[in-house]
Amino acid sequence: MKTVDVLLKNARVLTMDEQMNQYEAGAVAVVGDRIFAVGPESEITQEYAGIETIDARGKLLMPGLVNAHTHVPMTLMRGLADDLRLDVWLLGYMMPVEREFVSPEFVRLGTLLGCAELIRSGVTCFNDMYYFEEVVPAVAAHAPYTCTAEILQETARVAMEFDVPLHIHLAETSYEVENMRRENGFPVVPYVKKQGLLEAKVIAAHCVHIDTGEMRTLLHAGAGVAHNPSSNLKLASGFAPVMKMLETGIQVGIGTDGPASNNDLDMFEELRLTAFVAKAVSNEPTSLPASLALTMATRMGAHALHLGKITGSLTPGLRADLILVDISGVHNSPSFTRSRDNLYAQIVYAGKSTDVSDVMVNGKWLMRDRQLLSLDEDALIRQAAEIARRVDSFLIEREQSVLSKLVALGGSMEQESFEVQVKVKVTDAHAIREALTRPEIEVVRYRHYDQHDSYFTFEDPLQGRLRYREDDFLDETGNVTMTRPRLTHLGQQREDAFAHNILLSRSRFLAAATQSLRFYREYFRPKAEGTVEKDRERWLVRFKDTEFFVNVDRMIEPSLGLFVEIKSRTWSRKDAEHKAILTNELLAVLGIANSETVTEDYFEVAKAK
Amino acid sequence: MKTVDVLLKNARVLTMDEQMNQYEAGAVAVVGDRIFAVGPESEITQEYAGIETIDARGKLLMPGLVNAHTHVPMTLMRGLADDLRLDVWLLGYMMPVEREFVSPEFVRLGTLLGCAELIRSGVTCFNDMYYFEEVVPAVAAHAPYTCTAEILQETARVAMEFDVPLHIHLAETSYEVENMRRENGFPVVPYVKKQGLLEAKVIAAHCVHIDTGEMRTLLHAGAGVAHNPSSNLKLASGFAPVMKMLETGIQVGIGTDGPASNNDLDMFEELRLTAFVAKAVSNEPTSLPASLALTMATRMGAHALHLGKITGSLTPGLRADLILVDISGVHNSPSFTRSRDNLYAQIVYAGKSTDVSDVMVNGKWLMRDRQLLSLDEDALIRQAAEIARRVDSFLIEREQSVLSKLVALGGSMEQESFEVQVKVKVTDAHAIREALTRPEIEVVRYRHYDQHDSYFTFEDPLQGRLRYREDDFLDETGNVTMTRPRLTHLGQQREDAFAHNILLSRSRFLAAATQSLRFYREYFRPKAEGTVEKDRERWLVRFKDTEFFVNVDRMIEPSLGLFVEIKSRTWSRKDAEHKAILTNELLAVLGIANSETVTEDYFEVAKAK
Repeated sequence: MKTVDVLLKNARVLTMDEQMNQYEAGAVAVVGDRIFAVGPESEITQEYAGIETIDARGKLLMPGLVNAHTHVPMTLMRGLADDLRLDVWLLGYMMPVEREFVSPEFVRLGTLLGCAELIRSGVTCFNDMYYFEEVVPAVAAHAPYTCTAEILQETARVAMEFDVPLHIHLAETSYEVENMRRENGFPVVPYVKKQGLLEAKVIAAHCVHIDTGEMRTLLHAGAGVAHNPSSNLKLASGFAPVMKMLETGIQVGIGTDGPASNNDLDMFEELRLTAFVAKAVSNEPTSLPASLALTMATRMGAHALHLGKITGSLTPGLRADLILVDISGVHNSPSFTRSRDNLYAQIVYAGKSTDVSDVMVNGKWLMRDRQLLSLDEDALIRQAAEIARRVDSFLIEREQSVLSKLVALGGSMEQESFEVQVKVKVTDAHAIREALTRPEIEVVRYRHYDQHDSYFTFEDPLQGRLRYREDDFLDETGNVTMTRPRLTHLGQQREDAFAHNILLSRSRFLAAATQSLRFYREYFRPKAEGTVEKDRERWLVRFKDTEFFVNVDRMIEPSLGLFVEIKSRTWSRKDAEHKAILTNELLAVLGIANSETVTEDYFEVAKAK
Repeated sequence: MKTVDVLLKNARVLTMDEQMNQYEAGAVAVVGDRIFAVGPESEITQEYAGIETIDARGKLLMPGLVNAHTHVPMTLMRGLADDLRLDVWLLGYMMPVEREFVSPEFVRLGTLLGCAELIRSGVTCFNDMYYFEEVVPAVAAHAPYTCTAEILQETARVAMEFDVPLHIHLAETSYEVENMRRENGFPVVPYVKKQGLLEAKVIAAHCVHIDTGEMRTLLHAGAGVAHNPSSNLKLASGFAPVMKMLETGIQVGIGTDGPASNNDLDMFEELRLTAFVAKAVSNEPTSLPASLALTMATRMGAHALHLGKITGSLTPGLRADLILVDISGVHNSPSFTRSRDNLYAQIVYAGKSTDVSDVMVNGKWLMRDRQLLSLDEDALIRQAAEIARRVDSFLIEREQSVLSKLVALGGSMEQESFEVQVKVKVTDAHAIREALTRPEIEVVRYRHYDQHDSYFTFEDPLQGRLRYREDDFLDETGNVTMTRPRLTHLGQQREDAFAHNILLSRSRFLAAATQSLRFYREYFRPKAEGTVEKDRERWLVRFKDTEFFVNVDRMIEPSLGLFVEIKSRTWSRKDAEHKAILTNELLAVLGIANSETVTEDYFEVAKAK
C-alpha cells in the first residue's frame, strides 16, 4: 500500500479527461503538486493511504475551472460605470480612473481581491491582462486597434523568445473589424498574421467577428480562443460564432473578462451562458450541451491557454488543481443519475459558484469548507472600499463640470484663446470677395468648407457650451477633400466689448475631436442639443502688419442669410484695443462699416429664430 | 412615538417605488402585514419604535422579487433531461414522467421544495402554472396550441367570474405561431382575443414571437407579460422583443419559467439575463439598464400580475414583502456611490441569490440569517431524492427498449399484426396492371403514392427497427393530395416461412406518427439511419373470397427496379397456411409465379447493395 500526500475519497468524481470518465463512488490520490491516481473508490483506497485523508461526503470532485480571459485587478472598478457603450465606458470612465489610480499597489490589491473571488468560485487557473504584470510569464498586447504594428511585431518576438503565450483581444466588435478593413484592407486575423503574431502561442480573446477563413487561420496557427459570453452580451459586442469555432477544431476556452464589464468573476455564470447563448443563436437547443460547456471551462480551456499538458482534467501526472462542489443544496435538488449527462447539467444549469466548498491548486489547499486559507478576505474588502471611496470622490469632482469631464478624457489639451471679433450681416458676398483683392489687403491663405456644428447645452448655464464641429474642406469644384472634427468648450460670458460691437471672447478648450459625436453626447449627457450648418469662405489676410481671419458665411441651417466675421487673436488688453481699432478700419475697407452688427454667435441667433 | 411591529433600521433602502427613492441610511416600519413607513433612518427612528427592531447592519433593504412565471412543482424534474428540443423534452420526458408520477402529493412536495429555493433567493411573490392547483386563486390554460377554443373561452369566463388573473403561455415558439397562422389564418394574440381571453386579466408568458400590432392589443387589453430569458435561451425559443414591449407601454415582469427548463428558480440570474440579452439583441449596451431590470423584477412585475396595488415596492400601505441583501461579499466588493445607478448595477450585474439573508412576506419572517423558518429543508431534500430515485428507475427501465420508449410517448397504440407476404422481382409493370383486370380478381380499391421511409437501427439488434413512413397520396395527374406519416416498430425476426419464400411477418407496433422525423430521431437516438423511396401502386383485391394487397413498387432510392408484393393479414397458423397457398395461386394468375423472390425487405436490400 503506497502512501500519498492527500487521498480524497467518497466523492462523485468527474475527471473531465479525454474519455470523460466519471466515478459515482470515486477517489483521487495526490502526491506533491500532482495528481497521482484517479479511479473508483474501492480500487484507489485499496492501493493508497493518505497522509491527509479527505472524506468528500458525496460532493462532486472535479478539476478546477480555467478562466481563459480576464483583467483581474479591475475588481477595483467593478460596478463603477454600467449600461454604457464600450467607447464611453472605456475612454470616459475606465481609462481616466486608470490614469489617476493604477499603480503596482492598486494592481496587487485588485489581484488579491480577484483571487479571493476566483478561489471562492472554483477557479484554479486564469489568464490575465492588465498593467504592471511584469512578473506574470505571458505577453499581452491589448488589441490591434490600440497597438502599432511595431508593438505587435515586438510582442510576438518576445513571446517566442521566452516561449510563453501571447494574450490579445481580437475582433471583439464589428467596429474594430470595419476600421481594420478600411485602414488595412483586410480583417483582423490576416492583419495580425501579417505582423507575425500568429507565430507565437496566441490566446485570442473574444473573436466575436471572425469568418470561417480566419478560424482556419487560427486553427493552423495553433491559437486558442477565449470566449466571454457575459461581456459580449453586456457590452453588446455581438454573438461569437462559438459552435463554428469548435467545429473548425479550435480549442475554445471560457473567460469572465474583467469584473468591470461583467461585473464579477463567476465562471458558473459563464458556463451557463456559453450553453444558453449557443442554443439561442443557432436556434437549436441541442447545441453546445452541458458536457461540452464544462469541457471548455476545464480541459479545453487549458489547451486554449497552451497549458493542456499541465492542467485541465483529473489525470495522473497533471497538476492537482481540483475542487469540491456541494450539489446537495435546495436549488440543485433532486439529482438524477439515469445518464452521464445529468451531472454535467446539474453543474452547468443549476450549479452556483457558492456551491464550491474546497479548492486545491498545485496540491495545496486554498479553501477548505468555504474558508480561504491564503488570503485575508476582510482586510482586502476593507482596502478595496477605501479605493472605491477615493475613486468616487475623483469622479464626483470631475463630473461637477463639463470642462473637467472634457479634460478627463485625456489626449486633448486645454488652451486659452482670446479673440477680438466682430460679425456683421451683409447681402452681397461678391462685393466682399472683390474688396479682398484691394492692395492694402494681402491674402495669405484661402479656404472653403462646409461647417457642421452641434452645440450641447447643460442644465447649469455656468457650464458653458460644448461645440462639436466637422469642417468639410471643399476644392474648387465643391468636392469634399478632407473632414476635420473639432471640439470646443465655449465659456458662457463675453469678456469685454469695444466700440461698434467688437467683442473680446475666450475659448477655454480647443481640441481635435478624436471620438464620434455620439460618444460625446453619451459621455456629457447634455440637457439639449442644437445644430448649425454653414458654407464658409475663409481668408487669412494681413492688414496693416496684422493678421486677421475674414469669414464669409452663408448660413444653411437655419437659413439666416449672409454674414461677414472678422477675427484676430490677441494676448493683452492693450493689444486687444489696438486690434479693435484695426478691425473697424478693415470693415471700412471691405465696405461694410455701416452694416448691422450681430453680437450673438450663430447658435444663439438660430435659437432666437 | 408610535409603536410598530417591526422596525428595520441601519439599511441601504431601495424602495423601487414610482420615484425610485433610495435612502443611503434608511429605515422601514411594518405594522401587521403592511409597510407602514419608509424613509431616512433619522426620521423613521424618531417617529417609530418597533416591538421587534432589526439592525440591518448596512445591508440592502428592498422589495422581494416577483417571479412572474414558473411551474414550481417541476423542481422534482430539475435536470432530468437537458439539451433537447422543446418537443422531445416535453413529449419525450416531461409528459411521460408526469403521466406516471404527478399526484397532489407530488405537486405539494415539489412546491415546498421550490418555495424553499424561492425564499432563499429573495422571491416573495410568484405566478405558478401546473396540475392540481385548485387551491391557487388564478386560472391557467397551458397554451393556445394545447387547449381547444372551448377551453380558452371557458377559462376566460371563470377568470372573469372570480375576478382573478388568467395565466397562459403565448407565442413562445415560432413553430407555434406558424401553426396558428396556417390553421387559423392569424397570429396568436388575435386568436386568443377572438376566444374572449383578453377580456380577463391576462398574464401572458413568453410572448417571444409577437408583432407590434399584437403588443398594442395586449396593451389595450391591460394584459401583463412575463419574460423568461433563461428558458427562452436554453430551449432556443428566440429573443423576446422586450424593449419594444416596454416602449409600447406593456407591464413586463420577469420569470424563471419552470426549474426543469432553466434549471433553477434564481431570479438574480434572470435579472442579469434580462439586461444582458436586451443589450445584445439591440446591439446597444445602453438598452435596458440595471434600474429597469430591477423594476421589472419588482414593481412592474407586480403590475404584470395585476397585483400592483398589493405588492412590488416599499410603499406605505402595500404588503410587507421585503428582503435584506448582503452586498458586502468579495464578489460584490467594492461598492461605488457616485450615482444612484451604482446600487442597481451591483444587484443586477454582481449580485447572487445567495446574497439574500432575510426574507419577509406579508409581514412575517420566512428567513432570518439564511435560516428558513417555515420549511424543513433537509426533509424536503430527502423526500425529493426519493422521488428522483423512482423517476430514474422508471426512465431507465423504459429506455431499455425501443418499444417501451415508443409506448411511453403515449397517444399511440401497440398493435400486433401478422401478415402472409411474398415479394418478387419483375420487369413489366404494365403486364401486372393488365393481369389485375382479369375476371377472377375483383379490385376493391386502388391507390397510388410516393412512399418515403426512414429506418432507425440500434446498437442492440434485438431492439428491432423503427420505420418512419410518409405516404404522399397522388391523384391521376401525379399531384400530392395528402401526406400520411406513420411509425412502425418492426420485429427483428421472421416468424415463419412457407413454400416459395412466402413469409409470415409480425409488426409489433403501428401508429400514426404525430411528431416529426426529427423528433423521433432525437428521442430514439438510433445508431444508424437509412432511407428508402418508392413509387407504389396498391390494389386491394378480392381473390377466391380472400382480401389481398397487391403492391407494384418502383424503387427510386435506391434505384433497385420493379417489385410486386402480395400481402394478406392473418390471425392463426391454419389461416396463414391457407393464405400462403392462395398467394401462390395469385402469383400464377398475375403471371409471375416463376419470378425471383426476395426475402429481405427493401431496407435490407438497399443495405446489401
